[in-house]
Amino acid sequence: MSAADLSHSHHLALSARALRTGEQPVSYIMSAAVRDPHIINLAAGLVDSQTLPVEEAAIATQRVLADPKRARAALQYDTTIGLSELRQAVLDHLAEQDGLSPAQMALLASQVIITGGSQQLLGLIGDTLIDPGDIVITSRPCYFVYTATLTALGARMVTAPMDDLGLDVGAVRQLLENLQRRGELDRVKMVYVGSYYQNPTGLTLAVERRQELLEVVRHFSRRQRILILEDAAYRELRYDGPDLPSIKSFDRENQHVILTNTFSKPFSPGLRTGYTVMPADLHAAVLTQKENQDFGSPSFAQHVLLEALRDGLYARHVHKLRQSYRAKRDVLLHALAKYMPADAGIHWTHPHGGLFSWLTLPAAIDTGRSGKLFAACLRRGMMYLPGEYCFQGDANGNIPRNQMRLAFGRAALEQLEPAIAALAQSVREIQCQMPNGKCQKAGNPLEERPVVT
Amino acid sequence: MSAADLSHSHHLALSARALRTGEQPVSYIMSAAVRDPHIINLAAGLVDSQTLPVEEAAIATQRVLADPKRARAALQYDTTIGLSELRQAVLDHLAEQDGLSPAQMALLASQVIITGGSQQLLGLIGDTLIDPGDIVITSRPCYFVYTATLTALGARMVTAPMDDLGLDVGAVRQLLENLQRRGELDRVKMVYVGSYYQNPTGLTLAVERRQELLEVVRHFSRRQRILILEDAAYRELRYDGPDLPSIKSFDRENQHVILTNTFSKPFSPGLRTGYTVMPADLHAAVLTQKENQDFGSPSFAQHVLLEALRDGLYARHVHKLRQSYRAKRDVLLHALAKYMPADAGIHWTHPHGGLFSWLTLPAAIDTGRSGKLFAACLRRGMMYLPGEYCFQGDANGNIPRNQMRLAFGRAALEQLEPAIAALAQSVREIQCQMPNGKCQKAGNPLEERPVVT
Repeated sequence: MSAADLSHSHHLALSARALRTGEQPVSYIMSAAVRDPHIINLAAGLVDSQTLPVEEAAIATQRVLADPKRARAALQYDTTIGLSELRQAVLDHLAEQDGLSPAQMALLASQVIITGGSQQLLGLIGDTLIDPGDIVITSRPCYFVYTATLTALGARMVTAPMDDLGLDVGAVRQLLENLQRRGELDRVKMVYVGSYYQNPTGLTLAVERRQELLEVVRHFSRRQRILILEDAAYRELRYDGPDLPSIKSFDRENQHVILTNTFSKPFSPGLRTGYTVMPADLHAAVLTQKENQDFGSPSFAQHVLLEALRDGLYARHVHKLRQSYRAKRDVLLHALAKYMPADAGIHWTHPHGGLFSWLTLPAAIDTGRSGKLFAACLRRGMMYLPGEYCFQGDANGNIPRNQMRLAFGRAALEQLEPAIAALAQSVREIQCQMPNGKCQKAGNPLEERPVVT
Repeated sequence: MSAADLSHSHHLALSARALRTGEQPVSYIMSAAVRDPHIINLAAGLVDSQTLPVEEAAIATQRVLADPKRARAALQYDTTIGLSELRQAVLDHLAEQDGLSPAQMALLASQVIITGGSQQLLGLIGDTLIDPGDIVITSRPCYFVYTATLTALGARMVTAPMDDLGLDVGAVRQLLENLQRRGELDRVKMVYVGSYYQNPTGLTLAVERRQELLEVVRHFSRRQRILILEDAAYRELRYDGPDLPSIKSFDRENQHVILTNTFSKPFSPGLRTGYTVMPADLHAAVLTQKENQDFGSPSFAQHVLLEALRDGLYARHVHKLRQSYRAKRDVLLHALAKYMPADAGIHWTHPHGGLFSWLTLPAAIDTGRSGKLFAACLRRGMMYLPGEYCFQGDANGNIPRNQMRLAFGRAALEQLEPAIAALAQSVREIQCQMPNGKCQKAGNPLEERPVVT
């Protein structure tokens, strides 16, 4: 037997991190959707391909490349922290949204870091703060991609529920009290919260809870500082209601809040550029971590975005996007009201922005990937994201399996009503199969009901 | 005292990884160069801004954005593994360089992963394979950015020397025998090697050593498979001599070699796109890790590169680059021969490609950042990269401090001779200050000496 033959049987020893890293559930969902392009995909949280800024990107790119000096800068390395002018533009943009000046926010452009989307920042924060066994407080449900990252790092997640006002901050306080009693407060690194039109629920953290959350982490920062990781990725996709001040805007001493945002949702994921501000000591450590990973995000995309921001191309595009997604949200909510069975156990969120609504079914209906409803929906040509992916198991490993995320960004406007009709028919089909289940005749649109927010 | 006042004194608890992550030495070097733009910077390993593909990028970008369907794909998310057509183009390109077909290399496009430069792949491999205490065999000297990454992961580096034929593979075998005797073979994860015009030495691994290295890792793959991480970042910057087959090309069963390469050096760092092929079981684990980090590299840059590759823009640019860098290398080597003191202790490498020459001075001359030579060179307006950054301390923590990396990519052609003249004058100045030191009068160009290869 030759050495080459032997090699085939050799074990490949992966790292503890790799062994903890699970495949993202969305991979299956995406590949299933690709296998059958006729399926209306309300599972994937992608932005709409039809409203990507083709014209704006062409103008901005052409301008950057027409000026030899800028073109060379765009094609060269920049710095780890990111293009200086873009950091200033981002800071102005951030402060403007909060109705403050950068000075009032106690922030300088040197405190902004440009990242590879907000996803890179989420990873960097994990690498910089989390050792196996450290505790992160998350909402339930939570953005499942980040919980997978935290799992890969060996973090323990303890979860607080959400209601119509977003994360239940009283529950966070209770969790911290319990952890303190158990002597585990020093292991708590941060609270992760989607503050605007959260993925997966579409819910926004109420303004009074923003201040309260900051007070809670201040109160429990004893020997160790507890941070808030504020994920504001969907902030600019606002369709109605006020633009609330960021949690960061209350952290005037820049001690507790890491704010991360991205141009992927309001402009283009293909340029994959995000930005972040955070307390100074953490900023230095994150920058060192990033320096070891990539010496800075690609400069080409940064120059294109800077041009778009400066010239109003960006603002114009966001305005268009809001109109387009608002119409989709309205159709989705209208279709839910029109087709879903009138059942006390059935309700959904009414997002004021973002790309998601969160639907709850009676507890007996299994929305899981291996459940009957998922299969019934696929047969009828629609796909949703099973809510089970968005939960950590409780003490007994139990996960709610009667919810789902409905993403309305990617599907065409005219696909949304048929998709929801298919979903509603499938729900009725499952209800009819249940012992003692209510069985409403499928296909009859019910009278419209008020939307549950 | 309010809660806010209290927070200021709170300790921020970083992860073990963050505590192991050092600032890259090159950061200091870069900021020093920025502070005084008149300094001729032979320290930074950047590509030449003057030969970046401005025209090629403008043509490729314009074509991508002029076609609405491609434009939307370029501005949208793609897949974690990368744009399908680019993976096929990359595989063809790779195989062509090795004079083989993809089938002969036993590789499919589904085995290519598109990465954020090769830097991201180096990080991903670390995350996927390395636990604290695991062993990586590296060359000495070694690419210092990656040794910092490995240090951050808690890897133990054991090093083998280099000679004119590149990494000393006999020494690698000896290291593995020693590790086997000490019962540590199971902790050895990989051998990291720059196979073409290595950073920092400019040396290329001889073809017979490529095969031998593969045999060595096969031989010592007992319970655990040992991998070779082949960093071929500089391969396409070839100025003379043959294009040797990659180590990967000998690994016909795709069991041991991870090959990583990048478009940053031969095209544009601003697009920050690299590619990799590796054994199938590792491929799956790396892809899962990448999926958790970024769901795929930015698609915009991938589409631009695909267009450039397809249309010959890329090949045309590489051809131009080779001519430009070859001229710079020739000027550098000529200046070294012309100005450096004729001293048996002074010699340098003659690279056949890439961006670096490695200069060795007599052992008594300290090339370190805090040494006299570095300061003397700065005073005369040139900067080199101290060789000390490229070494791990030996058992006693000792590091050679009489070497340096001279990067000829970034400086203008006409700056290279004055920079080397300034270096040579500084060396003479230091020699004159040494007790019993040879003291040659500065400023007199010596007769030309043959270049040491």
